[in-house]
Amino acid sequence: MGPIIEKFFRPRSIALIGASSSPGFGYGIPQIWEKCGWLDRATLVNPKGGTIRGKEVVRGVADLPDGIDLAVVIVPAVHVPEVLAELGKKGIQAVIIETAGFAEIGEEGKGKQDELLGIARQYGMRLVGPNCVGIVNTENCLSTVELLETSLEPGSLAIIAQSGVFGGILLDYLPELGLKASKVVTLGNKIDLDEADFLEYLVEDPQTRVILIYEEGARDGRRLLGALQRAGRRKPVIILKSGRTPLGRQATLSHTGSLSGEDKIYDAAFRQAGVVRAADLSEMIDLARVFLSQPPMKGKRIGILTTSGSLGAMAADALYNEGMELSPWAPDTIQKVRNAAPGWMNVKNPLDVGPSGVFPIAAEALFSDPNPDGYMLIPVVPHAIYETWSRLRIEVPQILGDWRVLREQAAGKPVVAVLLGSKEWRSRVLELCGNSIAAVNTPEEAAKALAALYRLGKNSSNGKTFNPKDPPRDPS
Amino acid sequence: MGPIIEKFFRPRSIALIGASSSPGFGYGIPQIWEKCGWLDRATLVNPKGGTIRGKEVVRGVADLPDGIDLAVVIVPAVHVPEVLAELGKKGIQAVIIETAGFAEIGEEGKGKQDELLGIARQYGMRLVGPNCVGIVNTENCLSTVELLETSLEPGSLAIIAQSGVFGGILLDYLPELGLKASKVVTLGNKIDLDEADFLEYLVEDPQTRVILIYEEGARDGRRLLGALQRAGRRKPVIILKSGRTPLGRQATLSHTGSLSGEDKIYDAAFRQAGVVRAADLSEMIDLARVFLSQPPMKGKRIGILTTSGSLGAMAADALYNEGMELSPWAPDTIQKVRNAAPGWMNVKNPLDVGPSGVFPIAAEALFSDPNPDGYMLIPVVPHAIYETWSRLRIEVPQILGDWRVLREQAAGKPVVAVLLGSKEWRSRVLELCGNSIAAVNTPEEAAKALAALYRLGKNSSNGKTFNPKDPPRDPS
Repeated sequence: MGPIIEKFFRPRSIALIGASSSPGFGYGIPQIWEKCGWLDRATLVNPKGGTIRGKEVVRGVADLPDGIDLAVVIVPAVHVPEVLAELGKKGIQAVIIETAGFAEIGEEGKGKQDELLGIARQYGMRLVGPNCVGIVNTENCLSTVELLETSLEPGSLAIIAQSGVFGGILLDYLPELGLKASKVVTLGNKIDLDEADFLEYLVEDPQTRVILIYEEGARDGRRLLGALQRAGRRKPVIILKSGRTPLGRQATLSHTGSLSGEDKIYDAAFRQAGVVRAADLSEMIDLARVFLSQPPMKGKRIGILTTSGSLGAMAADALYNEGMELSPWAPDTIQKVRNAAPGWMNVKNPLDVGPSGVFPIAAEALFSDPNPDGYMLIPVVPHAIYETWSRLRIEVPQILGDWRVLREQAAGKPVVAVLLGSKEWRSRVLELCGNSIAAVNTPEEAAKALAALYRLGKNSSNGKTFNPKDPPRDPS
Repeated sequence: MGPIIEKFFRPRSIALIGASSSPGFGYGIPQIWEKCGWLDRATLVNPKGGTIRGKEVVRGVADLPDGIDLAVVIVPAVHVPEVLAELGKKGIQAVIIETAGFAEIGEEGKGKQDELLGIARQYGMRLVGPNCVGIVNTENCLSTVELLETSLEPGSLAIIAQSGVFGGILLDYLPELGLKASKVVTLGNKIDLDEADFLEYLVEDPQTRVILIYEEGARDGRRLLGALQRAGRRKPVIILKSGRTPLGRQATLSHTGSLSGEDKIYDAAFRQAGVVRAADLSEMIDLARVFLSQPPMKGKRIGILTTSGSLGAMAADALYNEGMELSPWAPDTIQKVRNAAPGWMNVKNPLDVGPSGVFPIAAEALFSDPNPDGYMLIPVVPHAIYETWSRLRIEVPQILGDWRVLREQAAGKPVVAVLLGSKEWRSRVLELCGNSIAAVNTPEEAAKALAALYRLGKNSSNGKTFNPKDPPRDPS
């Protein structure tokens, strides 16, 4: 499967069938190709001819130069079969059909879709789509969809999304979430290439560390399961599947024509394959963020350090609900904290240091304790106290310690911080986290992420261990 | 209970025992009193005397003028009993003890705490605390804790929080969440006044429309349940309770000395009282936002309008999981949408209009349909399409319609919008929502909020109906 998927992500030359000089899909794609330096390697096709972005437009597929690796089709649905056959005659092997109006609109569309597959088979072409927005590869700045430029910054997260709109929105959202993509594919009605094909490629992709899948329904469940199993052993795979309930199933049917099947079967299959299933969109995003920066967890005992007893209690509740445990502290750890702590402080887990000012000493003690398998930091401080520090010119690292040092002390263990409070405070804590400590928004999200890292650890111990600290190979 | 709680929220004159000229709690309170115009009505007490913020400091409680309505105590724990007895002798009836170091640190602290209660009973004083940050009343700009000024803008959300740190952080966070408080009380170890006392007051408070409670454990479960029952019939009450699991219970014990009790008993009791229990912090905040702007829902049938089939499917799944239903559309509604829609569009619920441009027409049709009891709007658009519109100088209201008109069409029904996509897009949609349509971040949050509005509707139909459109009485 490698060579053909390579033509989608790393073509030498490309074509757009349905390029347009008026706003719409066929207009935005040449624009992003120009921005990213791909217009020189592109041929634009439109029966009207003329020029688009200073480039001459050819009138038909027959006029394409030889050796085009990838064609993107965005003509109206009625013309797609004809265009596809012409592409086949030209010997083009990789085709993205972005046009909608096939199986997702019912029986008539289903028939048209089957026709496409027949044409592809006849000419030995491989298809992505229809009803999608194709691919993004941040490594070579190739995108078959118009995007925010910030979404094209190279990162380590691969995304396989069934839906074009959803995939696009996710890409728009990534920069703000502090996430950067490696490669993205939107599959749409996936009449030919599917998740399994792309999983197989992405698990070998040196730019990709974590794989995210949004799935409505698999065409071939057994095939998907096999691919997930192989991928899940080598890299963290997070899957969000809709059509989990009777109402959702009905909705996916009219969206991408997917039969999303019995949810329990999927649940068991995902668990068996060792991939992590996200309950919803925000959990999917949190898990991605945590998996990109934190190692899998070897056991289930968590150490919590906080300045808020309430949030410590919420975190304890959340960990319990996720099947995690609170770690005991070593006697030496307790002694170190007691020596520094005021009389009112209880040295427990969660350790609530309140406004005592002993956070750095406590953190040092807790992070050198061998007992915990992972840590949760909930360093919230009301504005009143933060203001006092500001007046005294006390910087946040003086209050919370040097988290790079903590990170070193807890090498090999995940650390997740919870950001809560005023905007200014949250930015300061986020700075402390840097790239090596994961930040989420609630204790519940932190608990879910740690539990997922534990499941990841259990899974990886059956195969190759993945570690986010492994450097990616240089783009070649 | 009214008159005494009135002394806490609307005192004529106040005193701070433990005022300080060096940074710390005793420093920040005079500062905020000065900002809010309360310093003129305040007496500051510190054995050292001198001046703080240009105001003369008296050396002892004995030197306080007569007629102080509320005293705030922030002296070290060891001095609290003595100070409290002196306040009793001065005839002061309302006292907030912010000092920590009582039952939450164990047996010794418990003994000291019992001593405080004895003194209070002896002099007929009523106490808030210890181990808290007291109260906030945005109506008269009174706060016994230093806060961001934006947190003091008057609103309609009352908060009863057991923990001072947590209450403070919640206040810091509110402005960014688009929430404004009416009154806040942090109860700490609540040796005297508790949730029930404040609930009774807040349910009568004309500034308060929605009541939020963060609870670790009730001293008197039966009393709390009674108060919740009375309150829940008149105003939406949202409760977040930690100590839900064995791990969390252990944590609350060492935090505020609370015995948080069997969670199932609380669950049943809350349901019986008709209050809405939030599963976690972010749900609590979302529910508050939705309850402040949306009416209770009369039935469980939801209409969904979206531009993303995937998000529509996720929303359908989420509604199913919350026990809600998808509404059928009236034949007339279907016809109106079909007349405007391109051939590929499926007129179902969720209605996914994709990039067709018929959102305003579809919305008009759906919102005049009598079938749905409430609506979810998921108007996501990839940046590519948004850019195209921007180039054509098409404004978002042209694309999504006039939501004030929609709001009128669906009068009496809740409408919740989901904000997803690029930052710019989310701001545009938030503008469309204005104050009359609630905005949340995921389809799952929207589903939870609508389900809560349904439960609220069922509850309110047993008693007085509350409607967020009822204007609050003028502050007097």
